[in-house]
Parts: sequence; C-alpha cells; structure tokens
Amino acid sequence: MEFPVLYLRKGAERRLKAGHLWVYSNEVDIRRSPLTDFEAGTQAQLRAANDKPLGTLFVNPHALICGRLISRNPSAGMTPQRLTDRLETALTLRDRIFPEPWYRWVYGDGDGLSGLVIDRFGDVVVVQISSAGMEAMKEAIIRGVQRLAHPRAIILKNDGKMRSVEGLSSYVEQVTGETVETLEVRENGVRFEVPLTGGQKTGWFYDHRMNRARLQQYSKDCRVLDVFSYAGGWGLQAAAGGARSVTCLDSSRQALEAVRKNADINGFQGVDTLEGDAFEALKGLCDERQKFDIVVLDPPALIPRRRDLKAGEQAYARLNQLALRLLERDGLLVSASCSMHLSRDRLVDIIRGSARKVDRFVQLLEQGYQGPDHPMVPGIPETDYLKACFVRSLTEFL
Amino acid sequence: MEFPVLYLRKGAERRLKAGHLWVYSNEVDIRRSPLTDFEAGTQAQLRAANDKPLGTLFVNPHALICGRLISRNPSAGMTPQRLTDRLETALTLRDRIFPEPWYRWVYGDGDGLSGLVIDRFGDVVVVQISSAGMEAMKEAIIRGVQRLAHPRAIILKNDGKMRSVEGLSSYVEQVTGETVETLEVRENGVRFEVPLTGGQKTGWFYDHRMNRARLQQYSKDCRVLDVFSYAGGWGLQAAAGGARSVTCLDSSRQALEAVRKNADINGFQGVDTLEGDAFEALKGLCDERQKFDIVVLDPPALIPRRRDLKAGEQAYARLNQLALRLLERDGLLVSASCSMHLSRDRLVDIIRGSARKVDRFVQLLEQGYQGPDHPMVPGIPETDYLKACFVRSLTEFL
Repeated sequence: MEFPVLYLRKGAERRLKAGHLWVYSNEVDIRRSPLTDFEAGTQAQLRAANDKPLGTLFVNPHALICGRLISRNPSAGMTPQRLTDRLETALTLRDRIFPEPWYRWVYGDGDGLSGLVIDRFGDVVVVQISSAGMEAMKEAIIRGVQRLAHPRAIILKNDGKMRSVEGLSSYVEQVTGETVETLEVRENGVRFEVPLTGGQKTGWFYDHRMNRARLQQYSKDCRVLDVFSYAGGWGLQAAAGGARSVTCLDSSRQALEAVRKNADINGFQGVDTLEGDAFEALKGLCDERQKFDIVVLDPPALIPRRRDLKAGEQAYARLNQLALRLLERDGLLVSASCSMHLSRDRLVDIIRGSARKVDRFVQLLEQGYQGPDHPMVPGIPETDYLKACFVRSLTEFL
Repeated sequence: MEFPVLYLRKGAERRLKAGHLWVYSNEVDIRRSPLTDFEAGTQAQLRAANDKPLGTLFVNPHALICGRLISRNPSAGMTPQRLTDRLETALTLRDRIFPEPWYRWVYGDGDGLSGLVIDRFGDVVVVQISSAGMEAMKEAIIRGVQRLAHPRAIILKNDGKMRSVEGLSSYVEQVTGETVETLEVRENGVRFEVPLTGGQKTGWFYDHRMNRARLQQYSKDCRVLDVFSYAGGWGLQAAAGGARSVTCLDSSRQALEAVRKNADINGFQGVDTLEGDAFEALKGLCDERQKFDIVVLDPPALIPRRRDLKAGEQAYARLNQLALRLLERDGLLVSASCSMHLSRDRLVDIIRGSARKVDRFVQLLEQGYQGPDHPMVPGIPETDYLKACFVRSLTEFL
C-alpha cells in the first residue's frame, strides 16, 4: 500500500523517538506536506525533515493533535487485521489480571489504539471513538469486538467532548443486540447498576478499582463519608469491607438514587445519602462537629485546563482541610485526583500543607494509580492521570 | 521539666514548619546555643531565631542531623510513657492492616520515632537504634515492646552503619528470651526462614510485601527470573502464584541455600538457583537466547550517595535493557529500586529509554511503593524511597 507522506519540521521527531505517539500541527512541515492536502482520518507515512521514515499515522488536518502514530514500521498501516490483533493483545492482559469481564478493554494510546476507548460490562460492550482515524475504522472495530468477545450488545457512545475538536458528530447508537438502558457493573465483589445515558463517560470509572479494593481493607467497623460519591463506587466498597455506617454525599439526586438501589442489591445496611454541594456540605458537617473514621475525597477533575491550575489547587486544598477536620483523632483520609494537570507530587504537597494548616500529623500509607486496565506509557505523560493517597491523620500525636 | 534551649538561625525553622523533623548542624545558632554544650542524646527545647518555641528535640552535637524533633509541643519531652504511646499508635495501624504479626512495627520518622526501627517476626522482635536520642531511651523501648507484644525474644541489632555517625558503638545483643539464630517470616501466605546474623538489615525487607503480592497475580504458568533474589522474597511469591518455573539469581551462596530451603518449606517445585554477578549472568542468559515470561529486578541501592547518581542510573539502565531482552514477546518486567536518590520519575524514564533502546513497546501497568508499615511523611522526602514498576513489554507490536 502506498501512503501519502507527512513531513515533520527539523527536530520535531524527538518526542516521538522518545516514545510518544502524537504529532502536533505546528510540528508539520506544511511547505512540503500541506495539512490541507489530507482528509480527516487518512493514513499516511511520517518522515523526519531528513526524509527518514518514522512510521505510519492517522492524520486529521483540523485537530491540534494532527497525527497519531499507528506503527513505527513505515509500511504497516492500520488494517482490520492489525486492529483486531491489538484488540486481542489488550484483551489478553485484562483476562490475565481480572477474574471477570468487567474492565476497560482498550485505553487509547496506552494500548496502541489512540482515539479508542472500550469498556466491557460483562456481555455489554461500550465503545467510544474520539479521533477521525478511529472513526474511519469503525466497522472494523465493531467486527473485532464481536469476534473476540461475542457480546450481547455493543453501544457506540460517541458523545465525548473531544469529538467536536476532531470534526466528528456527537451521537449514541446501539449497534447490535437488545436495547440496553442500565449497565450492570461488578467490581471487587460488589454489584452496581448504573444508567447508560445521563451517567458518566461510558457509564462507570473502572480506573479506581484497585484503590477501592484497598479501601475495603481499612473499613471494618468504621464510619465512612464518601464525598462526590456518584453511584457509590467507594462507599459501597467500604460497606463490603464491614463499615459500620456509610454516608454518600453528591450533588446529583439521580446518583444518590443509584447509591440506595446499589446498597439494596448488595444487601448493605447503614448506607445513607446526603444531597448537596460538597464544599458547603463538608463545611456544614464541620460546624455540626460530626466525626468520621474515614473520609474519601474523589472529586471530578478540578483542573480541567492548565490555566485553571491555581484555582484548582486551592479547591483541592480546601477539600483536604475540611476532610481532615472531619476525621477522628486516628482517622483515614483517601484523597484522590483525576486531574492530569495536578501532579502526584503536588497533590502530596497539598495534603502536607493541609495537614500542617489544621495541625495534624499525617502518614502517607499507600499511593494508588489507575488500574492495569488503564496502562500508562512512559513517554506519553497524558496516559498518567489518576492518583489516590491513603493518609492516616493523627491529632495531638507529635 | 526544664529543657536546655537550642536556637535556630533565622529562617531555619521553615522546613520544620512545613513538616520535617530534622535539624542540621549548620542551621543552629551556635553563638547563642553552642552545640558543644549538649551531650549526645540530650533532650532540649527548640526555638526559632525570634525566640518562638517550636517544640522539643533530641540533640546530638556530633552528627550532621544534630536535632530530631520529639514533639511540636515545647514542653512535651520524650518520656517512657510517650514512647510507649507512640509504639502503641504504630502497632494499632499494623494490627488493623495485617492479618498476622509479621511487619515493620516502627519505621523511624514515619512513626514519629526518629532513629528507631522495629521489625516483628511473630513472637520475635528485632530492634534497631540509630540515634543517640533513642539510645538514651533503650530501656524504655525494651519495656514498651515487652508490655505491648509480650515477645518470646527481643534482639537489639545495633550494627547499622548510621550508628558510628552518631558516635554509637556497634553490637548485636539478645536482650531477653532463648537464643534466636533463624527468623521465621510469613509474607502473603508464604513462609521463609532467614538467618538473623549475616543476613540483611534486621533480617528481612518487609517493604516490598504488597508489590510481591501483586507479582503472585501475574505469575500463573510463567517462567520467572528473580534477579538479586536474596532468600527468594519475590521468586517464591511467583511460585505461590503458580509459576511454571522460577530461577533465583544471586551472588551469595548463603542466600541461594536459603532459597532452596524456603522452596522446600513451602513445598514449591521448579525453583532453581543461579549463582553469579547479576550483570554478567544476565548477559550470559541473553547470549544463550534464554527467554522468560517475567523478570524481576530488585537490586540493592545502586546509588548509595548522591554523587553516585550518574553511574547508578547507568547501572539501572543496563539492568533494565538486559531484562527486557530476556523477555518473551509478551512479557512482564518488574523493575524496582530502593535508592532514595533515584526518583520515581527518573526510574520510569530509565525504563522508557531502555525500552526504546531495545525496541519494545512498554505499558506501565502498576506502580508500587513501600507498604503501609513503612509510612511516608509528606514533608520528609527521606521517608519515601521504594519503587516497583510493573511493565508489560511487547515485541513487534507498534
């Protein structure tokens, strides 16, 4: 197969050679290879300024990330076969680690499939496409998923906000199978039901699975507060671990309805819900001098863009201070962040500063990442985003 | 109780206020409070240049770290009662997390007991004292340990290399109980016997416990190479996880004898040993075109001092390249480092560079730290040293 050629400017190959898979539009030598010559989703061969072939890639002339590497082999384009091979390589890893088919099957760049996310919920598969290149492979993706997993239903949840950036339309479409409105989730031995539409992203965040499993180990006989609870992903794991009581706090009434339903499904007693803005509700609980043995903070990304860094860090600090104040003399804070722009070191430093501010001696017992179904690629910092710090807080200790 | 006063130079309180517990000798205002006025191990009150009391501390005029904070309360010195309280606070955490009494009971600064390490091996307790302040509390430590754990034997393994820096003599002494020559260790369901003397530090490194538990999950049917195996801490966990074969590589004949004995104790088949220098042996295995499904690299600290950074990083890179070359097309590298001077980011970058060098696509599946019986303190970077990266390596994938 003959590919059109995309030429890089001098030196622009450095990041790719170090392990990254993206090309930015300002790195292209548009004199030699005008981006406007390429249609969105076209495959091309990538060459350095000195003509050295670097591999193949998907091109999208409309996007800031205008190229996504397919292969470092300059004659290996993306074919239905290669795509199915990569789906299978991704599946092999998950099947090796997880006892049941509930996981993120494909994590974009982390699985060498930039622009593609696939979540598996037993025999229901939810596919999210966010690049023009992957959109061009849509049929092959669906056939590959069918061949490898034989799901009861495949849903294309193509309504992510990155799609407009790539010039793709927004839609949700059930491709095969009977109509699915509710997803069943199994995680660390706990069952959940979550709405497919109106819910978060593909319906569930599998990324905290291992961190939530760790929470189980700390929860016996504890009073637990789960802040930003959504459908109870953390709180119900604490209940499974033997928590004496669990309070799930969220601003969404629908999420809290799901919490109550999920507590019922698992037969958990002592699970309460509290509707409200997290900051205000935490302050209210402090004013009432309420105390908990464990507080979980798992906010949505408070730093959506780099320019929100300062305000976002202040918000994390406020939350962590409030949470520490709500803890018993010997309590556990689980402080998470999914903000890619907040580094792990900064989060730990925010916890340090918050502890000093409210005069606690804190021990960082464990640190968690996203689970192995969200593989990070060294060289692609964007694949590393999730942090969970398990912090023991002691009052009047030192 | 009246304490002598140690005065800091202007601004030197900043690190302490941020959470650290150490005072360096060049931070002391020796005009107002000559260090030579203090005996090693004396308790004193610490004050900022503006006379503001900052707490109490142990002083050692002979050491670079000449002060170790006891409390932020300027009138609360270290007493047998306060020491026992801290031993108990530390014990509460371990008993909450671990099903059996095999763990690091006290991790120095991480447990607010700077200069003291205590490891527990069932009913045998090994104590390591590395500061003059703690040496002065020796009797109280032993009584506290007896009161809280009623061990069959207490051993003072006071032969660490930090003792000479503090002007302390080196000795090993069995304080109570019958003579102990072999320690029994239980970790993640596997049993080990290790020699008390001639072995490593207190006899065992508990710090990798959780990382080794993760290795179990990846090991089924795999051929595993455990490099720098010591007594088989990683390799035998792989065997417990169902590994098809395990090869333990170490330069110490005594360590490999322990491996074979420990394999027998647990009834594990297929555990082999290989004696030799790791670098040469790995090269030899590469030359023989041997392949493994999993290679574990857990070298001793290759960067003992900051000035060894460059040579040490090169050694880590060489090891990681050799290990990647020994892996099957779809293999797992467990790459660990206990060098405090090698940051986590640098280790990940060394893995990235090594993978690019030998042309592998690598996925960073999991990252581990030291376990929760080695609590880190945000604000004391020295308490954070252990890293374990679980890396899937794919050949001809991208």
